[in-house]
Amino acid sequence: MSITQFVRPEAKILRVFRIRVVDKPGCLGRLATKLGEMGANIGDIAIVSQGPDFLIRDITLQMDDEKHLIDLIDALEHMDGFDLELVLDPVEQAHEGGKIRMRSRKPLDSIAEMRKIYTPGVAQICRLIQRDISQSRHYTSIGNSVAIVTNGTAILGLGNIGAVAGMPVMEGKAVLYEQLTGISGVPILIQSEDPDTIVNTVLNIAPTFGAIHLEDIAAPQCFEIERRLAESLDIPVLHDDQHATAVVVLAALLTITQRTGVDLSASRVGIIGLGAAGSGIAELLRSYGVKQVYGTDLRQVSLDRLQELGGTPCNLAQVMQCEVVVATTGVPGLIKPEMVRPGQVILALSNPDPEIQPEVAMAHGAVFAADGRTINNALSFPGLFRGALQAQAHKFTDSMKLAAAHAICGQTKLDNIVPSILDREVHTHVANAVARAASLTT
Amino acid sequence: MSITQFVRPEAKILRVFRIRVVDKPGCLGRLATKLGEMGANIGDIAIVSQGPDFLIRDITLQMDDEKHLIDLIDALEHMDGFDLELVLDPVEQAHEGGKIRMRSRKPLDSIAEMRKIYTPGVAQICRLIQRDISQSRHYTSIGNSVAIVTNGTAILGLGNIGAVAGMPVMEGKAVLYEQLTGISGVPILIQSEDPDTIVNTVLNIAPTFGAIHLEDIAAPQCFEIERRLAESLDIPVLHDDQHATAVVVLAALLTITQRTGVDLSASRVGIIGLGAAGSGIAELLRSYGVKQVYGTDLRQVSLDRLQELGGTPCNLAQVMQCEVVVATTGVPGLIKPEMVRPGQVILALSNPDPEIQPEVAMAHGAVFAADGRTINNALSFPGLFRGALQAQAHKFTDSMKLAAAHAICGQTKLDNIVPSILDREVHTHVANAVARAASLTT
Repeated sequence: MSITQFVRPEAKILRVFRIRVVDKPGCLGRLATKLGEMGANIGDIAIVSQGPDFLIRDITLQMDDEKHLIDLIDALEHMDGFDLELVLDPVEQAHEGGKIRMRSRKPLDSIAEMRKIYTPGVAQICRLIQRDISQSRHYTSIGNSVAIVTNGTAILGLGNIGAVAGMPVMEGKAVLYEQLTGISGVPILIQSEDPDTIVNTVLNIAPTFGAIHLEDIAAPQCFEIERRLAESLDIPVLHDDQHATAVVVLAALLTITQRTGVDLSASRVGIIGLGAAGSGIAELLRSYGVKQVYGTDLRQVSLDRLQELGGTPCNLAQVMQCEVVVATTGVPGLIKPEMVRPGQVILALSNPDPEIQPEVAMAHGAVFAADGRTINNALSFPGLFRGALQAQAHKFTDSMKLAAAHAICGQTKLDNIVPSILDREVHTHVANAVARAASLTT
Repeated sequence: MSITQFVRPEAKILRVFRIRVVDKPGCLGRLATKLGEMGANIGDIAIVSQGPDFLIRDITLQMDDEKHLIDLIDALEHMDGFDLELVLDPVEQAHEGGKIRMRSRKPLDSIAEMRKIYTPGVAQICRLIQRDISQSRHYTSIGNSVAIVTNGTAILGLGNIGAVAGMPVMEGKAVLYEQLTGISGVPILIQSEDPDTIVNTVLNIAPTFGAIHLEDIAAPQCFEIERRLAESLDIPVLHDDQHATAVVVLAALLTITQRTGVDLSASRVGIIGLGAAGSGIAELLRSYGVKQVYGTDLRQVSLDRLQELGGTPCNLAQVMQCEVVVATTGVPGLIKPEMVRPGQVILALSNPDPEIQPEVAMAHGAVFAADGRTINNALSFPGLFRGALQAQAHKFTDSMKLAAAHAICGQTKLDNIVPSILDREVHTHVANAVARAASLTT
C-alpha cells in the first residue's frame, strides 16, 4: 500500500514569549540554551522594540502542555538579565481585530479616481444597470460575492453556541474563499432558530450576492432552509456541511477504490450519524450510483430521511459490516478498535476528535483510515462556488457536485487520498469542472 | 475675500484608445502629433501587449464631447500604421468586476497558519466569545464593520432606480470607508419599499456589524426606518443622506461665518427642499443653535416635519431673503441669478447639477457659493462611523455630529471652505472628535 497515512502531530501548545533581554552579546545564547534544556522547541524570534540597553524579543515556543508552560515561566523568573513581559497566544493574535476586511480593489489616491468610482462617474454605471440588470454581474462585486450565512446552531463540533460566537468560523471561510479562489465571502449572522426568519431574511438581502453559502446550521432545520431558499432564488444555494463534505468524501472514496480496484458503486457504504453531513454524504453517494447505502442515527427523522434518499436504516453493528464506513456523529471514540473489520475503509470525520483515530483503525485491520483533517470540506466549497459563479448557474445540481468530486480525485497525488488544500491549482480545476457541468445541465 | 471659489472643470469626456501601432521609431510621435493637432489632450500611454512587429498601446485621451470623439475615430481610420482596436471608457473600466472584495487580512500560505485561523485553532476563539460575547469586538471583524444598507429608492440624483442599480454607489461608499478610515463597509441591498421589511431584515442581520449606515433611502420612509432601527439596536445607526451631509454643511457654514465675523446662530438660514438632506440640515442647525431656520418644500409632510424640528415653513421668495440659503431639491437651475441677494451665502447641493452654478451666484452678489462637489458627505461619514466604532457607542448623538462639524471646520485650510476628502488626517481628526464626544455623552 503506497498511500502514507499521516500521523497526528502531538497536541503541543504554541505560545509567544515577549521577553525583555539585556542588549549584550551572549544573552540570547544563554536564553536559548536554557529553553532548549527545558525541552521547549524554539520557533521564530523577532525583535519588537528596542531601548537604550535592552531589546524586546518575541520568541515562539512549542511546549508539551500547560504544565510545561508554567515550568518555563517559573524558570525564566529565576534567570538574571531576562524579564518575561507577556505570554501571547498565536491563535488569539491571528484573530485580533478580525481576520477579514472589505477592501477597495484599487487604491484611491486622486480626485480624478474618486470622480470615476464615486460621484459623478458612478451615476453612469448605475444607469447602465438600471437599463439592464444583468450588467450588475460585470460592473459590481455581486457576481463575485457569496453570503456565508449562519445562525450559530451547529458551529464546528461545538454545537449551538450562537451566531456571534460562530463568527470566527465564518471569517475563516471568507479567508479560504478569498485566498483560494478570489471570491468575496461576506459573513451574515442571523440570531434565530426559526426557519421562516432565516429564509425571509436571506431572501431580502439576496440581491447583494451571486450565491448563498449556508454554514453550520443544525439539522433538521438546515434541510428546510436550503430547500426553500433554492426554490425561491435564481442564484445557487448550498449548505456547506451537507454537500461540500460529501463531495470530499466521495472524492476520497473514488481515489481509494480506484487504487484498490474495487467498484465503489457495488460496495456497501455505512454511515454513522445522519445529521447534515451524514445525510449529504448518503445523498451524493446515491447520486453517484452506490446501490447499498446503510445508515444509523438516534433520531427517527434522520432515518426516515435516509430512506427517502434510497438508503437503508439499520443499527451500528450492521453499519460496521460494510466495506466502507463513514462516521459523522460528533462522538469521539464511538468506534471501538475491536469493531473494525479487516480490509475496511474508515472515514471518521468528527472534529476535532474523530470516532476512531486513523492509526488505531489501521492497526486493527482497516485498509484505509482518515479523519476530518484529511477529509476537509475546504477542498471543495471554494471551487464549487467559484464554478457556479463563473457559469452564472441558477442552482447547484448533482452533476456539479459529482464533477467537483471527480476533479478533486483527479488532482490527488499518489502519496495521499486527497490533494493539498493550499494548492490553488486544485481549486481552479474544481471550479472549471463545476462550471462545465453547470453549463451542460442548466 | 481670500477664499478661492473653484471653477467647475469643463465637462470633457475621457476615453482610452487601444491602438495597434507598427513597432518602428517615429510612429508614436506621428500619432501624438496628429491627436494634438485635433485638440485631444493625451494622458497616460501604456503598452498592453506586443507582437512580432507591432505594439498595442492604451492611450488615454480627453476630448470635448461625443462629436470630438467621433472625429478622432474617423481621423485614425485614415492614418497608415495605426489600427484603432477598441475605445474604452475609464469609468466602466474602474467598475469592471466590482470595486470591492472581502479580503483576508493576512496571506494564507501554510498549514500551520490554516490551523490557527480555521480548524482546529478557531474553536478556541469561538469558545472565548461564547463565554463573553463582548470579546467579539476584539477577535472578529464585527467591531470594524459597517453595513451599508439601501433599498435603491433615492440613488444620487437618479431617484428610485432599484437596489441593484444602486450597488455601484454602495461600493463607492465601501471604497471610501476602507481607503479613508480602514472600516470594512459591507453593502446590503434590500429590494423593498416597505419600512417593516427593511427594519426587520436589518434587525435580523445586525449582529454581524458594529454599526448600520443607511444610504439613499427616500423620504419620508427614511425617517421611520432610521428611528425604529436606532430604538431597537444597541449599535449606532445613521442615515448618511440626512446627517452626514448636514455635518458638512454646518462645517462649511462655521468656516464661512467665522471668517466673515458673522454669528451663525443669529443668522437666518433658509432651506429649499426638505427631503432627507434638507431635513437633516435643518435638524443639525437647530441643534447647533441657529434660532431662525426657514424652509420650503412642495410636500406638506416635509413642512410639518420642519415645524417639529423648530423651523419655520415658508415660500421660496421668503427663503431667498435669508442670509444663508441651502438648496437640496434635485432641481437644476431652480435658483435664478436675479433671486440672489448681495452678501448672501448660497450652498446649492443637488448632484450632479446644482440649483445655481456657484460662479453665477458669486457674479450676482453672493459672498460665498458652493455646490455638491465641495459640500460632499464623504468628508464626514467615514469619520463619524470610525469614531462611533472606536468609542463602541450605542448610538449617534447630536454632540457627536456637532463634534464632527467642528473637527472638519478645524481641518479646513485658509484657501477653501472645507478640507480635502483625500487628506487622511482630516478623517482621523473627525473620528477622534466623534469618539471623544461619544465617550462624554453615552
